[in-house]
Amino acid sequence: MSHTAEIIAVGTELLLGNIANTNAQELSQRLSDLGINVFWHTVVGDNPERLKEALEIARKRADIIITTGGLGPTYDDLTKQTICETFHQPLVLHEDILEGIRHFYETYLHVPMPDNNRQQAELPEGCVIFDNAVGTAPGCGFAVDGVHVLMLPGPPHEMNTMLDRCAEAYLRALSHEVIVSHDIMTFGMGESNVDELLHERMSHMTNPSLATYAKPSEVRLRATAKAADSETAEAMLAPVVADVREILGDVVYGIDVSGLPEACMKLLKEQGLTMATAESCTGGCVAQQLTALPGASTVYRGGVVSYWSEVKADVLGVPQDVLDEFGAVSDPTARAMAEGARRITGADIAVSITGVAGPDSDDRGNPVGLIFVGLATPKGTFCRKLELGSRRRDRLQGIATNHAFDVIRRYLSGLPVETVTSARH
Amino acid sequence: MSHTAEIIAVGTELLLGNIANTNAQELSQRLSDLGINVFWHTVVGDNPERLKEALEIARKRADIIITTGGLGPTYDDLTKQTICETFHQPLVLHEDILEGIRHFYETYLHVPMPDNNRQQAELPEGCVIFDNAVGTAPGCGFAVDGVHVLMLPGPPHEMNTMLDRCAEAYLRALSHEVIVSHDIMTFGMGESNVDELLHERMSHMTNPSLATYAKPSEVRLRATAKAADSETAEAMLAPVVADVREILGDVVYGIDVSGLPEACMKLLKEQGLTMATAESCTGGCVAQQLTALPGASTVYRGGVVSYWSEVKADVLGVPQDVLDEFGAVSDPTARAMAEGARRITGADIAVSITGVAGPDSDDRGNPVGLIFVGLATPKGTFCRKLELGSRRRDRLQGIATNHAFDVIRRYLSGLPVETVTSARH
Repeated sequence: MSHTAEIIAVGTELLLGNIANTNAQELSQRLSDLGINVFWHTVVGDNPERLKEALEIARKRADIIITTGGLGPTYDDLTKQTICETFHQPLVLHEDILEGIRHFYETYLHVPMPDNNRQQAELPEGCVIFDNAVGTAPGCGFAVDGVHVLMLPGPPHEMNTMLDRCAEAYLRALSHEVIVSHDIMTFGMGESNVDELLHERMSHMTNPSLATYAKPSEVRLRATAKAADSETAEAMLAPVVADVREILGDVVYGIDVSGLPEACMKLLKEQGLTMATAESCTGGCVAQQLTALPGASTVYRGGVVSYWSEVKADVLGVPQDVLDEFGAVSDPTARAMAEGARRITGADIAVSITGVAGPDSDDRGNPVGLIFVGLATPKGTFCRKLELGSRRRDRLQGIATNHAFDVIRRYLSGLPVETVTSARH
Repeated sequence: MSHTAEIIAVGTELLLGNIANTNAQELSQRLSDLGINVFWHTVVGDNPERLKEALEIARKRADIIITTGGLGPTYDDLTKQTICETFHQPLVLHEDILEGIRHFYETYLHVPMPDNNRQQAELPEGCVIFDNAVGTAPGCGFAVDGVHVLMLPGPPHEMNTMLDRCAEAYLRALSHEVIVSHDIMTFGMGESNVDELLHERMSHMTNPSLATYAKPSEVRLRATAKAADSETAEAMLAPVVADVREILGDVVYGIDVSGLPEACMKLLKEQGLTMATAESCTGGCVAQQLTALPGASTVYRGGVVSYWSEVKADVLGVPQDVLDEFGAVSDPTARAMAEGARRITGADIAVSITGVAGPDSDDRGNPVGLIFVGLATPKGTFCRKLELGSRRRDRLQGIATNHAFDVIRRYLSGLPVETVTSARH
């Protein structure tokens, strides 16, 4: 029997528009992957009457209710109390959880636990407890009258961590099919081009299915199969993945990798190489995305954020006459920045970015969106020129950062680096 | 009389988690600014029975219903038909709208209008029509039995444009109050401590109201007042903001600023100073957050991501004997990194971060979460030691980054920098 879920987010900040309901999106993706239908999202404020009303409606039309938010220690966090009242579940104090919260305060925050955290250790009788590895409020799941109720915390990193560690296993146990997915990651081709190339292949597919998810300058393709067991699902997926690779060519940079930074890290590790960065208009985005990955220190030595021209000259050793003649945003400066970063860090390769991220054009009149990505290697120095046009600052920084990783990926894969694709598409 | 609104988003892509419901966020912000309460968000798929059920529930508990999505030309776009059935409104063909859509196709898309676009020109009898300046589907608003129903398109840029040009004016005409908010930004005190200190002040407040929103290591307080005009609202808010500042002391770092990076940038600009960075375990997060702000180049010269010890020594000039004796994660190394960054960039002050972000302890056995934040200034060099415990890597990097900005903020404000708060709380 297939399940029907409703997600109820609790939080006045959602109704005021301070934040978007990204928890519902994340949960919906996971539930979809588990083969559980989601027919409703509801958002209510920190108001027990309206939450109770939402729960009463949900229990009539769904057999899995997942709430997010309202598990904190403050007086307006009333989700647990309201759920227990609605479903007639007694709350029980768990001494071990209380000890855990006390320990968290004393060890990490160096203050005694405030009294109002005590209620976080109270949970419905007989529930499955979901540990909160990154916060104090535990979550839980229980079944009553054929309805499963799961309570998860509101802060997205707590919600996601709890899903990964506990709640997904609870939900998986309710489902009887396996769903297997593979993500085919591409960079350098727009969504409508990808769509056009794959349209014939995709239009007749239902199981396995193939869906595209576009971010600026990146397209992820998710191939998904439902089957009785994972071996069958994998056998259904293999030809789809192979076909997509064949059709799209070298814009495919990996399968089931989290993104271009991870793809680069893998290639560097395999080849026993290290890298460095020299960033101007991206101000450390490349470095930050690399070092967000555990284990980055095996391949990343370090880099320079050369925001001012003086830093480009004094720290990276970009020749003053290059800066004077061509300016900070130029092909020769990008090359000299990459070479400088490679020299001063001793890395095998170094990538550089210099450009105009806006909001205004630079003092030489270079337009917003003009960006140069350099790469210094033992085989010589390369440069890719981007003309991205006037877009939001963070978009431009994000796209330029992707290009820096793409330049590295293509170099390490033996592909030409100065263009985005090798094939004619 | 104050109004109560419910936002109903229609779209299976929301229930599959392909996209977040950003339309509800945008609408909620606008409605809040207009003094209209939003008590419910609902999301349903492209399914007429469930949309009808959502509308029947909404009309009982709200007097303004706003739908987004389902106005397109395809067979699964059923919002308008379902709304008209539910509220017993006849649909009428508008010849001028049909001409407009035909014109759009022929002029901009250079193809004849497909037949299924014809239904987009049908609208409820007597409604106010909202032109779609950036797409083909018009929206509309009408009142029936004391309930106002507004239909807006789903694509966010169409929804936003229609709000700006038509729908906001319709809503404004319904409202008679203004709502004014101020955000009081704090760093260095947990949410429950803030709550305890303010509980007495907050618990009796309804207008103005005071709500807390916590992120890891930061708490934002939003004071909100409803009044007939903005002067009255501001006069109601002034004593609340003053009280909170008084009670919380120097953990308050700003009013209505976007975050610590912006607060630091303001202080640096006011004092005519520049800064630099030297980052190890945060790998460029401080640099990246600063350079995300337009205008960062007036105050930020640049910095070094010294991920390897060799880079700390060779680029930043951290003495080899300091690295040998105390290790890369130590108070003396943090100080030398900051001093090095200040020296090589010529900045007035420089902040540094070195620590263990995990997942494993370092080669000297320093535990995950041990982090040192250094600050080199004309008045000497400072260092704050953090013991954050074992948490997710990105959390530790985020918290350490906040501490780096807090160290700068406190130095520039003439407060002690090596601790998080000056006051006894």
